[in-house]
Amino acid sequence: MRKITDNSEYPGYLLKCQEELLLDSGKIISDFQVAYQTYGKLNSNKNNAILICHALTGDQFPAEESPITKKKGWWDLMVGPNRPIDTNKYFVICSNVLGGCVGTTGPNDINPKTNKIYGPDFPTITIRDMVRVQKILIDELGISKLLSVIGGSMGAMQVLQWAATYPESLKSIISIAGSLKHSAQNIAFDEAGRQSIMLDPNWDNGRYPEKNKKPENGLSVARMIAHITYLSEKAFQNKFGRNLQEKKDLSFGFGIDFQVESYLRYQGKSFVDRFDANSYLYMTRAMDYFDVSSEIQNNKNKIIQNGIRFLVLSFTSDWLFPTKESKEIVSLLNSVGSNVSFAEVVSDRGHDSFLLDEPQFFKVCDGFLKGIK
Amino acid sequence: MRKITDNSEYPGYLLKCQEELLLDSGKIISDFQVAYQTYGKLNSNKNNAILICHALTGDQFPAEESPITKKKGWWDLMVGPNRPIDTNKYFVICSNVLGGCVGTTGPNDINPKTNKIYGPDFPTITIRDMVRVQKILIDELGISKLLSVIGGSMGAMQVLQWAATYPESLKSIISIAGSLKHSAQNIAFDEAGRQSIMLDPNWDNGRYPEKNKKPENGLSVARMIAHITYLSEKAFQNKFGRNLQEKKDLSFGFGIDFQVESYLRYQGKSFVDRFDANSYLYMTRAMDYFDVSSEIQNNKNKIIQNGIRFLVLSFTSDWLFPTKESKEIVSLLNSVGSNVSFAEVVSDRGHDSFLLDEPQFFKVCDGFLKGIK
Repeated sequence: MRKITDNSEYPGYLLKCQEELLLDSGKIISDFQVAYQTYGKLNSNKNNAILICHALTGDQFPAEESPITKKKGWWDLMVGPNRPIDTNKYFVICSNVLGGCVGTTGPNDINPKTNKIYGPDFPTITIRDMVRVQKILIDELGISKLLSVIGGSMGAMQVLQWAATYPESLKSIISIAGSLKHSAQNIAFDEAGRQSIMLDPNWDNGRYPEKNKKPENGLSVARMIAHITYLSEKAFQNKFGRNLQEKKDLSFGFGIDFQVESYLRYQGKSFVDRFDANSYLYMTRAMDYFDVSSEIQNNKNKIIQNGIRFLVLSFTSDWLFPTKESKEIVSLLNSVGSNVSFAEVVSDRGHDSFLLDEPQFFKVCDGFLKGIK
Repeated sequence: MRKITDNSEYPGYLLKCQEELLLDSGKIISDFQVAYQTYGKLNSNKNNAILICHALTGDQFPAEESPITKKKGWWDLMVGPNRPIDTNKYFVICSNVLGGCVGTTGPNDINPKTNKIYGPDFPTITIRDMVRVQKILIDELGISKLLSVIGGSMGAMQVLQWAATYPESLKSIISIAGSLKHSAQNIAFDEAGRQSIMLDPNWDNGRYPEKNKKPENGLSVARMIAHITYLSEKAFQNKFGRNLQEKKDLSFGFGIDFQVESYLRYQGKSFVDRFDANSYLYMTRAMDYFDVSSEIQNNKNKIIQNGIRFLVLSFTSDWLFPTKESKEIVSLLNSVGSNVSFAEVVSDRGHDSFLLDEPQFFKVCDGFLKGIK
């Protein structure tokens, strides 16, 4: 049984599903829910719907003011009236991913079988599992074919997974700063972050929620590590260089001397207020496990028959998901005979460029979407 | 009063100094000691001495079997009979840096003023302070002019500092994978590592040694973070890719699935057995503070008058100390009219290349040293 209600915790909607979902791990999750938000109006032909897939630490509120942070939505520059993803024209859907901590069922929720918080008993999930849940939502909304599925970073992984698993359910995708599979270096960064969390005594084998504690120190360091990978070396140089933080001289101590230290500590501290450590573990694991190449190859006939249009985008200074990896996506898609466009956007702001004001990037997305019929 | 003795803890020597040393911080350290090792013989003219400066986690045993690890010395490929730094020809000296944890006075030693372990009361040190202590050692050995001062990474910082501070005391330097100053990105990585240590409850404001505990978790994660920066993305790809660790299928858990995870965890765990967390804090801070440009400019006349020859080396795939930063060294040295050679060695193994078997690298060092008269 499925039922859509208003979300009591946040503005937006909740899809409650009383049913069993078989996951890639072989485990089953039941009685799950999906927290989502929509922008714009679904037209009568139901052919103007765009699904946005969020990145590791994103949520279901890309546009307008976020009801959580009270700041602009995380993709406010991309999604809204007269933006590239124009909410005057398109019906835009974004849902918190499975395993998340902003309303969709995740490790911090109650396990209906035990009436206790899942914690480490939450099943390991994959990008495909996230997409399975999104497909259920799209079905419930009565949309048989999405105009486009769009996302950056971990969002790009979901986007590619959509094309591989449900090629008959979409007309186009935009993969931004993504890859076919997580690289060894990226698994290493994820693992350093996970170890930071799991070695924090407050993590307590993942049982911290029921004990009313939080591995804040571990999660904070994990965020610092990750944050360094989101910026380019040049972005660090331009933003901070070796500037001192509100002082003229070095302090000769371990407090904050450099602006970059202040920035990193702030990133770490503010993150623990809005994100859950177990969710962080499950999501980074899903990224590590991601490898969509063979599924794209296996489903190439359906991809071609459905005439899916692909746009693959990368940024010159992104070293976490470098252009090389986007070119591997393009190469595979070309090799299976699909319709693929590619652009490398010049930006010196690193992986985070996809969230920033990058006019060339917006133009390419805008034009591509206008061409989808 | 200074006295050289055999080192009771390790083979090698100990220089005990009962004197006051003024540090860059304005603080004074007294009754310090320097643990060092030598290889080869000092000739009667005392003009065949080479000082090797070790990197962040190195020690005074670059050659032969290490008395600590019982493995080959950390630079065994570079230093030894018929190696580029040929111990049949040269008298090679290497000392543990000030603030270190392998015999030279550091935060884990007894503060003579309180008879308690220094811990966080150890003064913050700089690369210049490390070099000051090395200069005292060289003076005590009766060497007025070093044939060369050679080091990679943090060792390269010391090498450049030697040329800037004591230009009359050396004939040449070799700076390998170094920079004039630590970049904002590198300060960020250091800070993430320090936060990992300082947020470990066992760090206990740096007082852990007197309480018989160790911030092993924090230090282990700091090492993992750093270790990722020592390898190139390609090295990760070649070494591990997405290979699974002794299994055929994903485990769908947070144990070790990928070889790269096993490798990182091992690096973290084995590091805490041989390194001290407070030393790690002090040394990374010294690197952050390093900025030698103005001192080189101020001492340019002495550098030119002494006819110092410089060799600056970098590796193509090193992203921690990229070639760009070595070129900045070369540019500054050229601008002050010094005699500088530069080579970028092709290697896909990242920053760690300077410790690995890189024949082109060895050839350049060998040839350069033979040319120093």
